[in-house]
Amino acid sequence: MHKRIGLIGLGIMGKPMAKNVLKAGFPLTVYSRRRSAVEELMAAGAEGARSCREVAEHADVVITMVTDTPDVQQVILGEEGALSGLRPGSMIIDMSTISPSATREIAAAVQATGSEFLDAPVSGGEGGAIAGSLSIMVGGKDATFAACLPILQAMGKNIIHVGGTGAGQLTKLCNQIAVAVTNLAMSEALIFGAKAGIDLEKMHQAISGGAAGSWQLSNLGPRIFQRDFAPGFMVKLQQKDLRLVLQEADRLHLALPATGLVHSLFNALETSGAGDEGTQALVKVLEKLAGVEVKA
Amino acid sequence: MHKRIGLIGLGIMGKPMAKNVLKAGFPLTVYSRRRSAVEELMAAGAEGARSCREVAEHADVVITMVTDTPDVQQVILGEEGALSGLRPGSMIIDMSTISPSATREIAAAVQATGSEFLDAPVSGGEGGAIAGSLSIMVGGKDATFAACLPILQAMGKNIIHVGGTGAGQLTKLCNQIAVAVTNLAMSEALIFGAKAGIDLEKMHQAISGGAAGSWQLSNLGPRIFQRDFAPGFMVKLQQKDLRLVLQEADRLHLALPATGLVHSLFNALETSGAGDEGTQALVKVLEKLAGVEVKA
Repeated sequence: MHKRIGLIGLGIMGKPMAKNVLKAGFPLTVYSRRRSAVEELMAAGAEGARSCREVAEHADVVITMVTDTPDVQQVILGEEGALSGLRPGSMIIDMSTISPSATREIAAAVQATGSEFLDAPVSGGEGGAIAGSLSIMVGGKDATFAACLPILQAMGKNIIHVGGTGAGQLTKLCNQIAVAVTNLAMSEALIFGAKAGIDLEKMHQAISGGAAGSWQLSNLGPRIFQRDFAPGFMVKLQQKDLRLVLQEADRLHLALPATGLVHSLFNALETSGAGDEGTQALVKVLEKLAGVEVKA
Repeated sequence: MHKRIGLIGLGIMGKPMAKNVLKAGFPLTVYSRRRSAVEELMAAGAEGARSCREVAEHADVVITMVTDTPDVQQVILGEEGALSGLRPGSMIIDMSTISPSATREIAAAVQATGSEFLDAPVSGGEGGAIAGSLSIMVGGKDATFAACLPILQAMGKNIIHVGGTGAGQLTKLCNQIAVAVTNLAMSEALIFGAKAGIDLEKMHQAISGGAAGSWQLSNLGPRIFQRDFAPGFMVKLQQKDLRLVLQEADRLHLALPATGLVHSLFNALETSGAGDEGTQALVKVLEKLAGVEVKA
């Protein structure tokens, strides 16, 4: 029999993920601050709740998909939060990207009430959320992972149980380090080519298939050539994630020179008002310094 | 009828490239400072020459595959260099990775004697040279490219005519920027995971297929886990190429902050005696700062 699912947070990611949970046949109750999003899901077959507590009262497994650490703390631990409505023996899966340290505290609070917790942040963006092909990086107990796997499979394809509580968030932060610095690798290669005056599309074709190749270069390079800065993943959200990386690196007394650099360059980009653009806009900071545009 | 080929420089790359030229049926004359390498090629069916000039006297097309800018200048323009033996109407293809500015000077000197010149640096390493699957980035005139294409096809697969003289070298430098900074992206992701204490192989499996993915992460990550620092591409050669990038960036007054950073970190690595190791040894600099090893 299908578990009853609750889902809190119907933003760019949460809404299509909720629809995929419904499609897979799970009974679903949803809550979002935006009532219009709740109504959209109700039209698709979900129950609409008026609070996080009410979601938890109707669910065996509560999924949270909100923006940042304080949001997760509020929707789970807050006065009207999910934990206040959860029966012992239930489960919470936080799929937001938040602080690994805060994650361990939230998990402890949930477990203290007799329920279980998984951290399960995702990558793959809105496209992956819609297609149900997200990568999901999971931290938590083996038994909890096994119990939740069919639900995660409704939303993602590459689902890896990395380790104990917090390991999912730490893996996501590794992902974001590689994403952001590889973006800078692409950006510097492109600005060099543009300043040197070579044919950028031919250059791109020549280098993408070999040791210089990356998802960033193959997918974001062509968008830059077309001056398409629409967000696949927004600069301000990348910055939120890099802040989590650098806070955790501080806690670990760890030197991450390139990650610090790219965070700093994104800060300069945000100053120019590009926080809602896609991360491929990073190249604009280099363009400003170089006095040329990367244009095919 | 097959053109007669000359090839100067029988190092890690030049020797297998020469063998593939022979296999494709071209008459071949070779020269190297190391007589043993010349004899190995003679045993495979090549003629052995005693100087670069003698190579040129027996060839319609001379290929140079040596280490750095001064080497190319010497083997082409030096007293006993190829240009001194070349008949007008011949061609020189420099497949080394050298300065784009020096390349334009060399091309001008060759053209002044009535011959033609292509810059055609490669990527793909020793493995690609042996397999005949190198990527080749070519700068020069259309007609010269067309005339030399069948020869290049004996050595490579992804052969792109990027633009005029120097465009091949500039493209190769774009390639090296992306290679080196993406290597740093991987290294920082791995050191973060190691310092945080998560399972590195599971983390690698979770992030390699998505937006964090790259050739560097997929191919060099597992070698680092196995503590395998044998060279696919040597640190000291990567540094030679980054020096070319940064010299050209100086000439263009171009800011490349991450490229400067990774060059600096490779300098620290060379100080510790790792110049002959593979570029994946970059992670050792971060390990020294972090006090942990990236080990699966």
